[in-house]
Amino acid sequence: MALPLTAAHRRYIVIAVTTVLIVSYFMSASKNKPSPSLGNMIPQISPPPHKANTTLVILARNTDLSGVISSVEQLEAKFNRKFSYPWVFLNDEPFSTDFKRRVSVLTNANVSFGLIPREHWVQPDWIDEGRAQEGRNKLVRHGVIYGSSVSYRNMCRFNSGFFFRHELLTPYKWYWRVEPDVRYYCDLDYDPFVFMKDHTKVYGFTISMPGKFSSLMVNDAHSVWSNFEIADMDFWRSEAYTKFFEHLDNTGGFYYERWGDAPVHSIAAALFTRKDQIHFFKDIGYKHAEFAHCPQGKQWREGHCSCDPNDNFDFAQNSCLRHLMRLDD
Amino acid sequence: MALPLTAAHRRYIVIAVTTVLIVSYFMSASKNKPSPSLGNMIPQISPPPHKANTTLVILARNTDLSGVISSVEQLEAKFNRKFSYPWVFLNDEPFSTDFKRRVSVLTNANVSFGLIPREHWVQPDWIDEGRAQEGRNKLVRHGVIYGSSVSYRNMCRFNSGFFFRHELLTPYKWYWRVEPDVRYYCDLDYDPFVFMKDHTKVYGFTISMPGKFSSLMVNDAHSVWSNFEIADMDFWRSEAYTKFFEHLDNTGGFYYERWGDAPVHSIAAALFTRKDQIHFFKDIGYKHAEFAHCPQGKQWREGHCSCDPNDNFDFAQNSCLRHLMRLDD
Repeated sequence: MALPLTAAHRRYIVIAVTTVLIVSYFMSASKNKPSPSLGNMIPQISPPPHKANTTLVILARNTDLSGVISSVEQLEAKFNRKFSYPWVFLNDEPFSTDFKRRVSVLTNANVSFGLIPREHWVQPDWIDEGRAQEGRNKLVRHGVIYGSSVSYRNMCRFNSGFFFRHELLTPYKWYWRVEPDVRYYCDLDYDPFVFMKDHTKVYGFTISMPGKFSSLMVNDAHSVWSNFEIADMDFWRSEAYTKFFEHLDNTGGFYYERWGDAPVHSIAAALFTRKDQIHFFKDIGYKHAEFAHCPQGKQWREGHCSCDPNDNFDFAQNSCLRHLMRLDD
Repeated sequence: MALPLTAAHRRYIVIAVTTVLIVSYFMSASKNKPSPSLGNMIPQISPPPHKANTTLVILARNTDLSGVISSVEQLEAKFNRKFSYPWVFLNDEPFSTDFKRRVSVLTNANVSFGLIPREHWVQPDWIDEGRAQEGRNKLVRHGVIYGSSVSYRNMCRFNSGFFFRHELLTPYKWYWRVEPDVRYYCDLDYDPFVFMKDHTKVYGFTISMPGKFSSLMVNDAHSVWSNFEIADMDFWRSEAYTKFFEHLDNTGGFYYERWGDAPVHSIAAALFTRKDQIHFFKDIGYKHAEFAHCPQGKQWREGHCSCDPNDNFDFAQNSCLRHLMRLDD
C-alpha cells in the first residue's frame, strides 16, 4: 500500500481528504436518528441470555485501579447488572493479583485479564528513533499534551490497529470501550448492541469530536471521540480498514507525529461506512475529563440521569454538533 | 425533668453514667450478630410492594445539591431501584426548583421536599446567648470542629429531637438516614427494614463510634455514628426518649456546649433498648468523610463491593469495634 510520495505529501493528502469527508458527512447527516425501538426494551426482570456477541473492554494499567473500579461500578449499576456482558481488561504489563481481585468482585459477568503482545504495543524497530525524538521535541515545544510520551503513542496505535486482534477479543463481534475514571450518568434499560444489530449500525459514539478536527493529530481533545465507543469489531477487521491502518502505520505518523486513535477511527468510519451506519447515542450520559454529554428532555428523565442537562459538551464552543446537527427531538 | 443541680454537676453525671453504659454495652454485646436470613432475600425480579412502612431521609441545603445527587444516585443503584421506598428531603429553607428537579429525576419512588418549622431549628429564646457565645468561644480556642457554628448546633438538636416529628415523617415508622456526599460501596439485595422488623431490631448502624466517646460532645468524629442510621422512629417518639431528650435540651447543652446527635442517639439506644435490638450492618459498605466500613469476605464478594476490604475504620485506631467486638465470621 505504501505510495511513492514523501511523508509531507501524504500528510497533506490525508488532511485535505479528511476535511472534505468529515464536513460532508456531518452536513448530510440525518437529522433525526431513530430512537432505540421499543422492541429492544428489556423489562427489569431477570438477566436475559446474551443477545449479542459482545464484550466490554478496558485498556488499563495497574495504577489505574481506582479509576477502573469507578468506571466498572457505574457501568454495572447503570447497564450491565441487567445484561451481564463479559468484561475484558487489557494491559501491556501483567495485572496484579490485587487488581484482578478488586475488579472481578464488581460483577457477576465473566471477567478476563489479558497481556498485550509486545509486537502490538512497542515502537516498531523500523521507526527512525532520531526522527521520532525530533517529532516529540517539536510537540513539547508547542505545549501539546503527551507530546513527549512514547507510551501514549503506543496506546494510540494499539487502539487504532490492534486491540480487536487480541486473542481475548477475537471471539467477539461487538464491544463497548470503557476507560478508567469516566462517568456514566444515566440508566440504560435497553440493549444498545441489539439496537446496533437491528439497525445495521457499525459505529456508535456519545461525544462528538471538536470543530478544529482537521488533521490526524488533535491537539486539545486527543480522545474525545473514541474513548467512548460502542461498535462492531468486524469493521476494524475488514480489508478496507486493515489496508487503511497499514497505510497510516507505514508512514510512521503514530510516532513521528502523535496521531490519535480518535481521528483514525472517525476518518475510517466516514470513509468506509454509510452515514446511517453511525449512531449518536444521545441517551447515554457520559463524561470523560472535562467533556460531557448529558441527555435532554425525555431521555434525561427516563434515564434517571444525574448530570445537569445544561452542562453539555454538545453545546460547547468547539463541538461539531453545535453547528452541524440538530439536537432537538 | 430539670434537676436541682448546676450545669457542671449535670455534665459530670452524664459523662460518668454514659461511660459506664457504653462500655458495659459493648463488653456484653453479642459476638455474632445474625446475618440477614435468607427468608428476606428478594430475588432480582420486579420491585415488590413496600414491605415496611419506610422512608429514606436526607437533611440538606440547596448548596448540597451535588453531594445529595451523588448519595441518592448510589443508594438508588445499590438498593432502592429494587425497593422504591419513598424519599423525604428536609431543609431549614425552601428547596430551590433546580434542587427539586435534579433530585426527583434520580428515582422512580415518591419524593417529598419539606421545610423544617422554625421552632424545630433555631436556637430557643430561653437560651442565654451570652453563655452560648462563651461556650462557642471556648470550643474555638480548643480548635474544635464547628466550634463557632450555631447552625451546626441547630442541626444536631434537630437530628436529636425533632426530625421524626416532621409532618412528612410522621406517617412512617422506619427510616434510613442518608447524608450528602457519602459512599455506598455494595449492593444490598435484601430488605434491611424487613430484617429489622422480623428480628425486633430498633437501631441499626454501620460505623461504630470512636473510642474516646465519653461525653456528649465528640470532638473529632462528630457524627461518625448517626450519619448512617436504619432505625425505628417510634423509638425516638417513645415516652422514655422524649423525656430523655427534653432533659438534655433543657440543660441548654446543645448550645452551651455542642452536643452531637450521634452520642445522644447512641446513649439512648444503650439506655432504653436491649442489646439484641441494636444491629451492626456489617454487610453495608459505607463511607462518610474519612470513616469507612468495608464488608469482609463473603459479604464483600456477594455485595460486589467497590471498597478495599483493608481500608476499614472498623480496624482503625479509635474504633470501638477493634477492642470490643469480634469481626471475624
